[in-house]
Amino acid sequence: MNDADTAARSGPRAPRTHLTHPPTRAALLIQHRVLTSVRATLGRHGFVELPLPLVGPVTDPGVRGAKQADVDYYGTTYKIMTSAILYKQAAMLAFDKIFCIAPNLRLEPLDTAVTGRHLVEFHQIDVEAAGATREEVMELAQSLVTEAVIDVVREAPDELERLGRDAGAFAELLDKPFERMSHAEAVTHLTALGVRQSGTAEITWEGERVLSAKAGRPFFVTDYPKGSRGFYDRESIDAPGTLRNFDLIAPEGFGELASGAEREYEPGKIIERMRETGENPAKYGWYLDLVREGIHPSAGFGIGLERLVRYVTGADDVWEVCAFPKLPGMITR
Amino acid sequence: MNDADTAARSGPRAPRTHLTHPPTRAALLIQHRVLTSVRATLGRHGFVELPLPLVGPVTDPGVRGAKQADVDYYGTTYKIMTSAILYKQAAMLAFDKIFCIAPNLRLEPLDTAVTGRHLVEFHQIDVEAAGATREEVMELAQSLVTEAVIDVVREAPDELERLGRDAGAFAELLDKPFERMSHAEAVTHLTALGVRQSGTAEITWEGERVLSAKAGRPFFVTDYPKGSRGFYDRESIDAPGTLRNFDLIAPEGFGELASGAEREYEPGKIIERMRETGENPAKYGWYLDLVREGIHPSAGFGIGLERLVRYVTGADDVWEVCAFPKLPGMITR
Repeated sequence: MNDADTAARSGPRAPRTHLTHPPTRAALLIQHRVLTSVRATLGRHGFVELPLPLVGPVTDPGVRGAKQADVDYYGTTYKIMTSAILYKQAAMLAFDKIFCIAPNLRLEPLDTAVTGRHLVEFHQIDVEAAGATREEVMELAQSLVTEAVIDVVREAPDELERLGRDAGAFAELLDKPFERMSHAEAVTHLTALGVRQSGTAEITWEGERVLSAKAGRPFFVTDYPKGSRGFYDRESIDAPGTLRNFDLIAPEGFGELASGAEREYEPGKIIERMRETGENPAKYGWYLDLVREGIHPSAGFGIGLERLVRYVTGADDVWEVCAFPKLPGMITR
Repeated sequence: MNDADTAARSGPRAPRTHLTHPPTRAALLIQHRVLTSVRATLGRHGFVELPLPLVGPVTDPGVRGAKQADVDYYGTTYKIMTSAILYKQAAMLAFDKIFCIAPNLRLEPLDTAVTGRHLVEFHQIDVEAAGATREEVMELAQSLVTEAVIDVVREAPDELERLGRDAGAFAELLDKPFERMSHAEAVTHLTALGVRQSGTAEITWEGERVLSAKAGRPFFVTDYPKGSRGFYDRESIDAPGTLRNFDLIAPEGFGELASGAEREYEPGKIIERMRETGENPAKYGWYLDLVREGIHPSAGFGIGLERLVRYVTGADDVWEVCAFPKLPGMITR
């Protein structure tokens, strides 16, 4: 990422300028290759593509101040999915391994418009596997990213060159497995660097930026504290208070690419976790009905498509790799 | 379609019953094959997969009484896409050939809950090609359907058998090109059969059902009258009052699979057509700004994914082939 290029941070170009800009076209062709690669890898691993709902009576609670969008649905209020987690868990009744690449919408707070990695409308590569452990899905997430990079380097070298992205940036990535550190280790590491972090909260954006900027290839942060994530990330039996979850973070300052976890699937625990996180269980009627009758344990993750493409292309800002980007607070008429 | 089986018409089963029902699983596996096949065919024809917006200040006007869903978007009202047509036209500034398989939402009138082919939330295989003629995109639509059938028959014979769908149903389909009739010919034909139709309006559902039930393979109806479709279907120069558009209709009573057209792209004509169809041009700010500066002529279509899967599987009702179906007026809590 070229920090000197602050022009990109001034916000998206007009639609015509953006769509006819040769770097946009190069980035969107790379996005096409990434989509093709990800589906092929998931297919090789036996995953079934299953379209999931776009709107519903409830979606998973927003994080870090993002709000859910209300939809007027036959006189009642539905929400646009902020992520498909609840439906992915339900879908495990039909298949052991599913994926869905679909739009999600989060009304992000206005101050995220300048992070370079927040779009209100984005696409998530949503993956879930019944009976899987966190480690198994982390390995799969690593394969999806690695294979996507290999495919883009092989099939879109001209586009990478046009974008000034040196394929050498991926040499370390391809060299060995992604490193892993726990949230506690990340906090210790950041504190030693003078970046203030809480052991019981989400890593700050500044903390994530620092960790990401120091890295040469993507890495995992695991075991976030319970208070920092939604009710669906399963709490560890061995280490109560920490979650069986992970984030996948890109190097070079590009930040978070994916989040995933083993899921809570026992009704008592889910309701307890909902209460702890300030969610009203009464809102989750259909989901809790299903959970009470029994759902399968599972693990999964969601990779932000545009964030992955931004990392692969080396774009300064995530809007540069989206055909019709929506930045927080920006209204089109 | 087995008309004797009216049980299916009683509406979707509870989520657990539906998702664990072996025929549901078979239908969803066939859907996975259809998705894979369609993307492969589009890839062979040089189409770029381009995710398009989910919500925006405007979407194309609803047809046949379907309403748009309002979304509270940072204090203003956005609409969920009923189709991606306007963005497909805009995307022609970046690429000559694009596709997007994405959810759309139409608040269909309650009486459509019993047609067997209406879902409020559905997926559209949206395709657009710059400089293409109607005939070229009709041929592509035919290829997508034919290849999908071939791939499903080859790769999912067990699932077809479980669903009681005889692969012989597709013999005629694979035999020769799909037949074509104009809207005027369809009206004459239906009138002769005693089914009342207007020469200046949409074919009625009963008319479409009769035509579909008599057919042995999919067929096209072309040249709909101007008043029956939206402003984006281009009016014929040679035959004013008729549109350069088409529907693709499945045989055996399954009804409409796809709609497509050459697009209006000249600003004067688009505004005139908006006014004729009762649309306020002032609502279409960003789109008309782009059109006034110049967009490319194009043609394209949208195939309803669930309708295509229903036809391939022979399901009585479209909700049977959807994991989490939404019927018109049905609310989940």
